[in-house]
Amino acid sequence: MTIELNSPLDMHLHLRDKEMLSVVAPLTSHSFAGALIMPNLIPPVDTKEALLAYRDRILDATQGDIFKPYMTLFFRDSYDYDFLKNFGNELTAIKLYPAGITTNSESGVSGFDIKKLAPTLEAMSELGLPLCIHGETNGFVMDREAEFVPIYTKLATAFPKLKIMMEHITTKESVDALDKHENLYATITLHHLLITLDDVAGGMLRPHLFCKPIAKRPIDREALLNVALNAHPKVMFGSDSAPHPKHAKESCGCAAGVFTAPLALAKLTEIFMERSSVANLQKFVSDNAREIYGITPPVKKVVLEDTPMNVPLNYGEVVPMYAGESISWSIKTIEK
Amino acid sequence: MTIELNSPLDMHLHLRDKEMLSVVAPLTSHSFAGALIMPNLIPPVDTKEALLAYRDRILDATQGDIFKPYMTLFFRDSYDYDFLKNFGNELTAIKLYPAGITTNSESGVSGFDIKKLAPTLEAMSELGLPLCIHGETNGFVMDREAEFVPIYTKLATAFPKLKIMMEHITTKESVDALDKHENLYATITLHHLLITLDDVAGGMLRPHLFCKPIAKRPIDREALLNVALNAHPKVMFGSDSAPHPKHAKESCGCAAGVFTAPLALAKLTEIFMERSSVANLQKFVSDNAREIYGITPPVKKVVLEDTPMNVPLNYGEVVPMYAGESISWSIKTIEK
Repeated sequence: MTIELNSPLDMHLHLRDKEMLSVVAPLTSHSFAGALIMPNLIPPVDTKEALLAYRDRILDATQGDIFKPYMTLFFRDSYDYDFLKNFGNELTAIKLYPAGITTNSESGVSGFDIKKLAPTLEAMSELGLPLCIHGETNGFVMDREAEFVPIYTKLATAFPKLKIMMEHITTKESVDALDKHENLYATITLHHLLITLDDVAGGMLRPHLFCKPIAKRPIDREALLNVALNAHPKVMFGSDSAPHPKHAKESCGCAAGVFTAPLALAKLTEIFMERSSVANLQKFVSDNAREIYGITPPVKKVVLEDTPMNVPLNYGEVVPMYAGESISWSIKTIEK
Repeated sequence: MTIELNSPLDMHLHLRDKEMLSVVAPLTSHSFAGALIMPNLIPPVDTKEALLAYRDRILDATQGDIFKPYMTLFFRDSYDYDFLKNFGNELTAIKLYPAGITTNSESGVSGFDIKKLAPTLEAMSELGLPLCIHGETNGFVMDREAEFVPIYTKLATAFPKLKIMMEHITTKESVDALDKHENLYATITLHHLLITLDDVAGGMLRPHLFCKPIAKRPIDREALLNVALNAHPKVMFGSDSAPHPKHAKESCGCAAGVFTAPLALAKLTEIFMERSSVANLQKFVSDNAREIYGITPPVKKVVLEDTPMNVPLNYGEVVPMYAGESISWSIKTIEK
């Protein structure tokens, strides 16, 4: 049996830079038609020059694959209308990190003072530029995302024309928020459809499944699966695939992030097949994102078949999810 | 300033065996007058012969320190009155593990069928042998201990003359259970007075703070601190100090356990001093246990002073809590 996907998109991706970029970029560009590229480099991507240069380094690394990097800028409240307008089509969205909340987010936003954020957010509304948010407070680790929902509400209400993307949601509370505000959308990762805190810390501690936001409770995973499998029109696939070298994961202070890029489409197909929802997969991995972002990705036809994919132990220095295990679907052909 | 402790006791300790035993036993026997020794070796300690031989290996490893190992047996529902009576004073308590719940617990109890457990538990009641329980279900990791409270209730009600020790409690629910049944007692570790899940997985993942039961919420830690600092007469210090080699902690499937033995008294003194509760420390680290277990440990006077202890990076292959950090109190003298 085969499944055909048209121009799959990964709407939340970390490609890093330099050596790591050269290892991981082709693993996404091989099977995806495009991806929304996170800007949390050191230093963060916050100028047109930096954004275009990063885009070019990404294109270099993708080795001629049909692949569109949708670029994002690291949110700063100093951005104004003229500054943002000057990016033209090169800028797809702006990513907002609460300060210090995850990898390379030290210079993010502290507090969510509407007055302070308003000039930039109003300019974005006028330009139709979506705002992507890593929505966590610095509260107790299991509560951080749910505690952030009132901030989503505040922003969605204050800026009704701004499209706000709740990134990599992990809780029932965030899922519930989707239907309460017209301008709230969400990305969902592969791993949060699969794991709970039990997988991270319920048996042995498993650093390669440690990520931010941390995986939550079974009830949360069910809520995520429900909207993903039904391809709720306001949710999109965003892998949040986040590579770290093996030594940074298996050490005293393990870095946060799960690396799923090379196996994401195979595993998503397996999940959607097993739950009799494969008819919705095209929407979840592409059509919803096209609609929400108003983008037209390059044409790329990915055919998957029910032949096992054996996941390697590592890609360069990076250990993927399901390392050394097998997934029941695999990519058969990619037509351009 | 100095603080004097008389015959401090650690009522929940893992000493392991062989090489590891020789490294960790002196680190407890140096400063404690006695400790309740957990029986989860491979194979578990479940015969008189094994128990006496383990006791002798422990005494050999403690290098002549004044130290009494209070021995425990691995619970089996096949133990009867005569079998248990035959241990005489060599047996202090029996440790029950739900099957597969933690390190080397594969052959523990599955299900808690009162009828099946009754012969052994009635024999224990008659002999005045306490039952120590690792109280976790195999539910969601944050709920396991709270879910076990009804089992404590069931056992405490069915066997009113049996002293039941809720080992290394981590939740408000277990604290609340203490006052509901006369025959329920509890040990509390050092690390559960200090950390929450935020310390384990809220920033970077910290394998050396990963333990079972996993550290819970701030509200739980406050409940534990409250009964410990007030030396609630039904709570005792039990470190659950559980050494693993560094490579087993910093790896893909990190083993559960925090190693605190060598710094436990210094850190407890710091905590009790900082919270103006030092008058209760003697009860928490010795007197309550003597009363509950009816034991008279060897005389050993430990004097601590407010001079910093610099915690080494490792003891042999084992990384302690606070490795490379400093504690504001230290042991000054030990009089026998």
